[in-house]
Amino acid sequence: MTNKNILVLVSIGPGDLTMMTPTAQVALQSVDVVIGYAVYLDQVRPLLNESQEVVVSQLGSEVDRAEQAIALARAGRSVAMVSSGDIGIYAMAAPIFDVLRAQEWDGESPEVIVYPGVSAIQATAAKLGAPLGHDFCTISLSDLLTPWEVIERRVQAAAWGDFVIGFYNPRSKQRDWQLAKAQELLREHRSDDTPVAIARNVSRPDEQITLTTLGALDPTQVDMFTLVLVGNSQSYVLGDRMATPRGYMDKN
Amino acid sequence: MTNKNILVLVSIGPGDLTMMTPTAQVALQSVDVVIGYAVYLDQVRPLLNESQEVVVSQLGSEVDRAEQAIALARAGRSVAMVSSGDIGIYAMAAPIFDVLRAQEWDGESPEVIVYPGVSAIQATAAKLGAPLGHDFCTISLSDLLTPWEVIERRVQAAAWGDFVIGFYNPRSKQRDWQLAKAQELLREHRSDDTPVAIARNVSRPDEQITLTTLGALDPTQVDMFTLVLVGNSQSYVLGDRMATPRGYMDKN
Repeated sequence: MTNKNILVLVSIGPGDLTMMTPTAQVALQSVDVVIGYAVYLDQVRPLLNESQEVVVSQLGSEVDRAEQAIALARAGRSVAMVSSGDIGIYAMAAPIFDVLRAQEWDGESPEVIVYPGVSAIQATAAKLGAPLGHDFCTISLSDLLTPWEVIERRVQAAAWGDFVIGFYNPRSKQRDWQLAKAQELLREHRSDDTPVAIARNVSRPDEQITLTTLGALDPTQVDMFTLVLVGNSQSYVLGDRMATPRGYMDKN
Repeated sequence: MTNKNILVLVSIGPGDLTMMTPTAQVALQSVDVVIGYAVYLDQVRPLLNESQEVVVSQLGSEVDRAEQAIALARAGRSVAMVSSGDIGIYAMAAPIFDVLRAQEWDGESPEVIVYPGVSAIQATAAKLGAPLGHDFCTISLSDLLTPWEVIERRVQAAAWGDFVIGFYNPRSKQRDWQLAKAQELLREHRSDDTPVAIARNVSRPDEQITLTTLGALDPTQVDMFTLVLVGNSQSYVLGDRMATPRGYMDKN
């Protein structure tokens, strides 16, 4: 890439490189430095050449990682930050812009270009069939950066509004009660036989997708590598697939 | 493709073929018959070879088009249906499954495989920066298949829940009042200076993205080729970009 002082934010997509857009692949191959978590760097390594420097993101806050990438670009390098899924959805694009804002970025140096990609909810939906056939929302159940009261209100809103819901970060060892609470809130508005999919590591070799219902969902089956997809009032199961009708006029 | 009786649902992505995943491209090239709207067929034509039959979808209902594609697969062909964006999001995946359900599909014949892609909201978000940095929802303002009361409640829920909102099908010649009504509902919960982006034909040669605010949004500027993206209470504009912080703890 002839431009220096450039930071490209590159989405890998959900699984192997066959899900990564060609334009994102070209962008990644055109920079001096590639930065990201070790697991993401391993995914894209077949695309890289020997002249490219690879920097493993330090563990630490997202803000620290964003600052590191921006500093490299400000120092005159062309830099790609990589994330799995879509880098704009629960990934590094937002922390990057938050840091640029704090630094009173002039909008030009570094130049910032974002390459979108297929997010986990889309890969999961494709495997299931058509669960996102009507209006949907995504909710992260992580309360590390968002007060639980905000998340709880959002779950109630999604339930009341009859959105199909994709829960990101549904559960981890440290955050073990939030999904059960969300399930309880949803059951106030949506019937116990609402289809629910538990999707773990979709598009990876150890992919596992389990269909259950809102009433039968067992949160202890869910971990941090999982996306939980809850149907709306019209969603249905068809064999081992799940879909949501395009409209409300005809329930078939 | 050696399997017959197969229907693949193929996402083209938002613009040119550089945004279409390699796995979707391979799937498209492996079938006997490709079916879709003329404009989508024109987009993918560079990928096709002479032995592939191309069928222009008849105008008419989505159900009619789904039935036509399924009938071709049931007749022993391998068939690809193409849609721009992600075929699972406001496109043909849901009508296909609705028809399969009505036909009491056995889950095996035809085999159905869905290839996800980058949707319009993601392409728009990438151009803007990071507006989907926190929980978001998509809402179609088309009341052709969904009663307006359902849509209105959903807009209210999204407003109350402080979701970033992507409005698909925001306005057409026949549906000219829904976006103004949605704007009115949103203003009951969200401040007039909330950032709003009007994104027309994103990732196409005539792409146009305009930043405005919830108070200043002029619905007559919006047409059926447009996606309207409304920030949450924390979203901000930075030069000609828009972003939403990853959390609520720190407003920078």
